[in-house]
Amino acid sequence: MITSKRPRVLAPQNEDFPRWYQDVLEKAELADNGPVRGTMVIRPYAYGLWERMQSEVDARIKAAGAENVYLPLFIPQSYLEREAEHVEGFSPELAVVTHAGGKDLAEPVVVRPTSETVFGELMAKWVQSHRDLPMLLNQWANVVRWEMRPRTFLRTTEFLWQEGHTAHATQEDATAYALRIHLDVYRDFLQNVLAIPVLVGVKTKLERFAGAINTMTCEAMMGDGKALQMATSHELGQNFATAFDITYTDTTGRDQLCWTTSWGSSTRMLGGLIMSHGDDNGLQIPPRAAHIQAVVIAVKDDERTINAASDLFDALRVAGVRVRLDARTTQGFGRRATEWELKGVPLRIEVGPRDLESGQVTVARRDIGEKSAMPLDEVASSIPNLLESIHAEMISNARARLEERTMDAATMPEALEASKTGFARIPWKILGEDGERALNERAVTVRCLQTPDGTVPGPPDSFDELVAIVGRSY
Amino acid sequence: MITSKRPRVLAPQNEDFPRWYQDVLEKAELADNGPVRGTMVIRPYAYGLWERMQSEVDARIKAAGAENVYLPLFIPQSYLEREAEHVEGFSPELAVVTHAGGKDLAEPVVVRPTSETVFGELMAKWVQSHRDLPMLLNQWANVVRWEMRPRTFLRTTEFLWQEGHTAHATQEDATAYALRIHLDVYRDFLQNVLAIPVLVGVKTKLERFAGAINTMTCEAMMGDGKALQMATSHELGQNFATAFDITYTDTTGRDQLCWTTSWGSSTRMLGGLIMSHGDDNGLQIPPRAAHIQAVVIAVKDDERTINAASDLFDALRVAGVRVRLDARTTQGFGRRATEWELKGVPLRIEVGPRDLESGQVTVARRDIGEKSAMPLDEVASSIPNLLESIHAEMISNARARLEERTMDAATMPEALEASKTGFARIPWKILGEDGERALNERAVTVRCLQTPDGTVPGPPDSFDELVAIVGRSY
Repeated sequence: MITSKRPRVLAPQNEDFPRWYQDVLEKAELADNGPVRGTMVIRPYAYGLWERMQSEVDARIKAAGAENVYLPLFIPQSYLEREAEHVEGFSPELAVVTHAGGKDLAEPVVVRPTSETVFGELMAKWVQSHRDLPMLLNQWANVVRWEMRPRTFLRTTEFLWQEGHTAHATQEDATAYALRIHLDVYRDFLQNVLAIPVLVGVKTKLERFAGAINTMTCEAMMGDGKALQMATSHELGQNFATAFDITYTDTTGRDQLCWTTSWGSSTRMLGGLIMSHGDDNGLQIPPRAAHIQAVVIAVKDDERTINAASDLFDALRVAGVRVRLDARTTQGFGRRATEWELKGVPLRIEVGPRDLESGQVTVARRDIGEKSAMPLDEVASSIPNLLESIHAEMISNARARLEERTMDAATMPEALEASKTGFARIPWKILGEDGERALNERAVTVRCLQTPDGTVPGPPDSFDELVAIVGRSY
Repeated sequence: MITSKRPRVLAPQNEDFPRWYQDVLEKAELADNGPVRGTMVIRPYAYGLWERMQSEVDARIKAAGAENVYLPLFIPQSYLEREAEHVEGFSPELAVVTHAGGKDLAEPVVVRPTSETVFGELMAKWVQSHRDLPMLLNQWANVVRWEMRPRTFLRTTEFLWQEGHTAHATQEDATAYALRIHLDVYRDFLQNVLAIPVLVGVKTKLERFAGAINTMTCEAMMGDGKALQMATSHELGQNFATAFDITYTDTTGRDQLCWTTSWGSSTRMLGGLIMSHGDDNGLQIPPRAAHIQAVVIAVKDDERTINAASDLFDALRVAGVRVRLDARTTQGFGRRATEWELKGVPLRIEVGPRDLESGQVTVARRDIGEKSAMPLDEVASSIPNLLESIHAEMISNARARLEERTMDAATMPEALEASKTGFARIPWKILGEDGERALNERAVTVRCLQTPDGTVPGPPDSFDELVAIVGRSY
């Protein structure tokens, strides 16, 4: 491994995980703090990852039949007052524009904390007849929630996200659609692109989204054993439709209230990607999420090396690999290799004069930190398969960690003990709401409730048969 | 033509073009007004167009080597004061957040009218050595400029755009890069995707971007003969680098000021697309820009028709056509056909029982309003070529209109007369700055200055050899 002899640039994870996270944000050139407290600058390498994530999530949302819209950044204050529960949740987090166009505004406008209320107003207008249903909408946008304890990607005053809002004629249809989004969009993306195994389940009443009758969540375990909520999907029953008067005329000509859902995921997933797979040498980007899956590094500045590297770069591009050429031979090879390792590029293909003489190159895998020789003429055909097997190994390793660090607990003290290093599984019957509150006092929360075989339960009247996953969380 | 007998839904263009524009926004379900004055809701059909435009522009920006970043929405007021010329241009348009997180802010923050100043601060930090140059950055984001006379897509308080900012070691490199973006990104996209012929040239000193030493523009002619500025690219010389202290250490170890550029395009292009190609029956979307290039309409609700339409839909999708299936047979065929015509879908493929009996379907072209029969088994192989020839005809027609409505003028009165119906070409030597000001008093502006053969001139000391394109504009 090339990493053994160099001075370390990141705090070791097991000594100080939060410090490691801050270090990797800076050294891998992922993000800077914005000039206004709590805001962030997403640098090219991290934004390239976000673009990949966005395009993969978006393709799944479109496959589920939803269409994208764009709603305004500014919301009249009166809109937020429409749904009392809603405004109560957000009001301390709001940013308010009071001055614009050179004068004070008669009615201040709020910078959207979500576009929920605007979706509500518009759906009330756009949904008229049963023919308009289901109405399946989504938006990619920035939102603002003034953040007292910001942490880049995880909790920032401004973040990027998608929020879906749908209206349905029946509860069955709404329930089925929310579940479809949750499993076919979020879980599928998280596991099959980000290589992050997630626990799917529902939130307890305490943790449920305000106004929802059911909140589903995808919970992932980070490298330090803490949980990160990666995406949530809500069934809003008829609460939201009632607040915004979203009704339709049914086939018999009668007015009916709609059933609605909402669901979202955000740049927080970038934090999850970093903390799931990163190690003491930096990021590890899973191949399907990587906008740079392989980098061809010309080791030395001689013509034959540069040409061979350039040919290999072309061949890999033709083979469908997202590849970069690093021909910055005025900089030392070691320094460049370390940079790509820090950035977690899955494969480094090192092209040097000595290897070329024997008709081969060196392929370095970021995930297991090993190098091997590969015949030059096999590279373009082998790399796509190698990338796929790296994906499989990464999720398998992440799953092994999740399983290793999830304990079955039969009592509260056992659950608390387990949550020091990971998750505990404890029957809800044993925990109950009192137990949940007692955990919360110790900064441990119920991440989700699952059926005993780990699936998403339907919206139940009682949680008695369910198992609670508890842990510390971001 | 199916349109001859039905009541008209749009004001005719030649009676009231602005009314036609408002009508088509509403009837083709493109946009709604937002709840805060001057803001807009981009509905699914228009947002689908924007996604296509964004992906085509973005691919060209990436091909030119620039990388995307995301910078914060909020900017401290002090940042804007750094570049005096800059803040003067924007201050009456700014929206200011004075209250956030439940209390009044010590320093109010501005909602970005552009991210220019933040790019300046960051580039000063990120550019250190000649090795960091050129630094080629771009951002897709929403921006806010409080708008007194809003018009959807053309002038809105909030709009979506991309802004590129680059830093270079030499003026030659900055000049060449700005020109490359202008021609290979903007002109290429506008002509080869949107099928809108554009005049490329430079702005006069009066029209030049504040702080720029040269502003290049792409000017298009709308259906009413007025001009729309579709995209601009600026050479900022060392002005911007001086204001933000963007310097690099050259190969001899000396500090040098950078040369910078900036360039942008926005949702305004949606307005240009609508007003370039639309007619009295609605939109006309050029095939390469269309997210729905063809719609397969099942005319009647019988099994054979539905199956044939569905098979055709699959075959077209496999052939790489962006296609929709319209099997809403509970609604009348005529109403559905009119809807797709209004939305400007380039091809409607009508599948009905009578046609099927003779093994064919009816293909309706939106651009020329003609229908023809096509053997069922030729559709999938013929449509891609047909779409390409529609693109070619659309740009050729738009070019013919541009040429027809651009007059050579030798005097001011001739130029004014020509600008009632289109553009005038007048030598700058005849016009000059006094003439330009006189035109401006009549609401006519110099759209750009070109070389006599219609190309972009370099940044000249004198415009004496150039030709001015003048016209009314949006």
